[in-house]
Amino acid sequence: MEDLSKLKVTALAGGVGAAKFLRGLIEVVPQENVSIIGNVGDDLTLYGLHISPDLDIVMYTLADLVCKEKGWGIEEDSFNCLNMLSRYGFDPWFKLGDTDLATHIYRTYLLKSGLTLSQATLELCRKLGLKIRLIPVTDDYLRTVIYSDAGRLTFQEYFVKMKCEPKVLGIVFEGAEEAEPSSGVFEALEEADVIVLCPSNPILSIGPILAVKGIRSFLRRSLKPIVAISPIVAGKALKGPADKIMLELGLKPSALTVAEFYRDFLKVFIVDVRDGNLKFEVEQIGIKVVLTDTIMSSLSKQITLARETLKAALEIHNINC
Amino acid sequence: MEDLSKLKVTALAGGVGAAKFLRGLIEVVPQENVSIIGNVGDDLTLYGLHISPDLDIVMYTLADLVCKEKGWGIEEDSFNCLNMLSRYGFDPWFKLGDTDLATHIYRTYLLKSGLTLSQATLELCRKLGLKIRLIPVTDDYLRTVIYSDAGRLTFQEYFVKMKCEPKVLGIVFEGAEEAEPSSGVFEALEEADVIVLCPSNPILSIGPILAVKGIRSFLRRSLKPIVAISPIVAGKALKGPADKIMLELGLKPSALTVAEFYRDFLKVFIVDVRDGNLKFEVEQIGIKVVLTDTIMSSLSKQITLARETLKAALEIHNINC
Repeated sequence: MEDLSKLKVTALAGGVGAAKFLRGLIEVVPQENVSIIGNVGDDLTLYGLHISPDLDIVMYTLADLVCKEKGWGIEEDSFNCLNMLSRYGFDPWFKLGDTDLATHIYRTYLLKSGLTLSQATLELCRKLGLKIRLIPVTDDYLRTVIYSDAGRLTFQEYFVKMKCEPKVLGIVFEGAEEAEPSSGVFEALEEADVIVLCPSNPILSIGPILAVKGIRSFLRRSLKPIVAISPIVAGKALKGPADKIMLELGLKPSALTVAEFYRDFLKVFIVDVRDGNLKFEVEQIGIKVVLTDTIMSSLSKQITLARETLKAALEIHNINC
Repeated sequence: MEDLSKLKVTALAGGVGAAKFLRGLIEVVPQENVSIIGNVGDDLTLYGLHISPDLDIVMYTLADLVCKEKGWGIEEDSFNCLNMLSRYGFDPWFKLGDTDLATHIYRTYLLKSGLTLSQATLELCRKLGLKIRLIPVTDDYLRTVIYSDAGRLTFQEYFVKMKCEPKVLGIVFEGAEEAEPSSGVFEALEEADVIVLCPSNPILSIGPILAVKGIRSFLRRSLKPIVAISPIVAGKALKGPADKIMLELGLKPSALTVAEFYRDFLKVFIVDVRDGNLKFEVEQIGIKVVLTDTIMSSLSKQITLARETLKAALEIHNINC
């Protein structure tokens, strides 16, 4: 059996689900070997501060700062600034904790000083003691916009403010056609021994990453083992509105539907044991399925899933080579 | 006796001492009748946020939000954001509380949106339910810079970071010659029945206000009752480094020295009863002295001092008219 700890892994990541998987991954391979291409489609500017929710969730989770119960924000944070901002007339729909706020203040400060979002993210990670490379997919404008029965909504308006209640009619990744991948993206993909698509919403979280120029076609051409973990188990999203959105877009929420999104490049798909019945159908579209327990309810289960994922990727690779 | 509550009062104000006096004043005259010309010489930009410490102290004190023990900041505030900023590598020398931070975030947001500092200050005051007019002396660049045996220091570096320890060699109000008074300043001075110089540091707090174009000469020409309250009692500053700085500049820390600073326009000087021995000398330079208790250790004493101050101003006026 190969020594997994020598692998270079590059992961495409959304928010909470991805962060849990990655938290396990950094126990299997050293942080220095892990590159994470992060989603910025749900970034927003509030009170003049640049907020990158998905990057922060990954960063806080890997630095063991995250509020474990919610999966985002900082453990035991206070909300005094937000309360005062509300007194100043702001609708405090986006729950910014006081400690969390320091990240947005510092990021905004760095961006104003002329750094790119990638450079600012690297700086934040290093200050938090992280050695992973967390790379925003682009430094350019990229925004996930949801057209719904409640009108045009940015991702966070849909997700947080409206609690995913509006019916989704269509999704647009604004700016994706013009956005250049940030400078580390292709390097990270080229260096990788394994490319992982984390268990994130394939439409809203991985979608914006794949929409950026050249990334999807890189994956299509790549001979590397590319593995994804299904974020849908037994027809339900483990977190977030992936299942609801699939239904609204006329799709059946299932691991098979996720596989369809990735069918042009995916080689191995980690599917929950509860979805063993889908194995045949997924393999019919040319993707090898590995069944395992994908519910990451503890660090040890996160580690196990990361290990299983890498092993599955290597196996398919060895078979193909 | 005149009805003090009908008076229009315009005050020149620094930080803690001024705020305490003004807190009493708004119990004597309605807030709508009070204009406050505030010092911005100790404003600073930290982490990309515009902070106006003296304006905030006045605002928080009048809105009953201030931390009473310290005289600045917000009562019972937390410091979680500052702790995280410190983890990000900032020296947390300037004690920004989490609730307090909302003011700086909102002010910076308003300034970035194109408002002037005056307009932003008005907005902050109104949102806190205040009806006073708090007018930053200028919307232009004005910074109190201290040349010391530790080099060139901004006011807050001297005052907070270095705890007033360096020896002061000279003081410069950078930008004062070019700074235009903000639009409400002369209107407030012209409308006033009484002009009050609050018990603030005459050099560092009132100094920058008087240095702005046209303000000192307006006071010189004015026939209105102009009254000051001494911030020095029995040779000691009630708050801050006024006494230490006077010594370092070769001056004797006393109410007489304060009177000398204002001698070209001041008509009445409220001096603490403990300094009764100075009455003769101050009156020798043409300023009427009224002795009273100036230690504002409770709201009722703040109110009494405000009432005494207005009465003294009116008396001299009636005598002169």
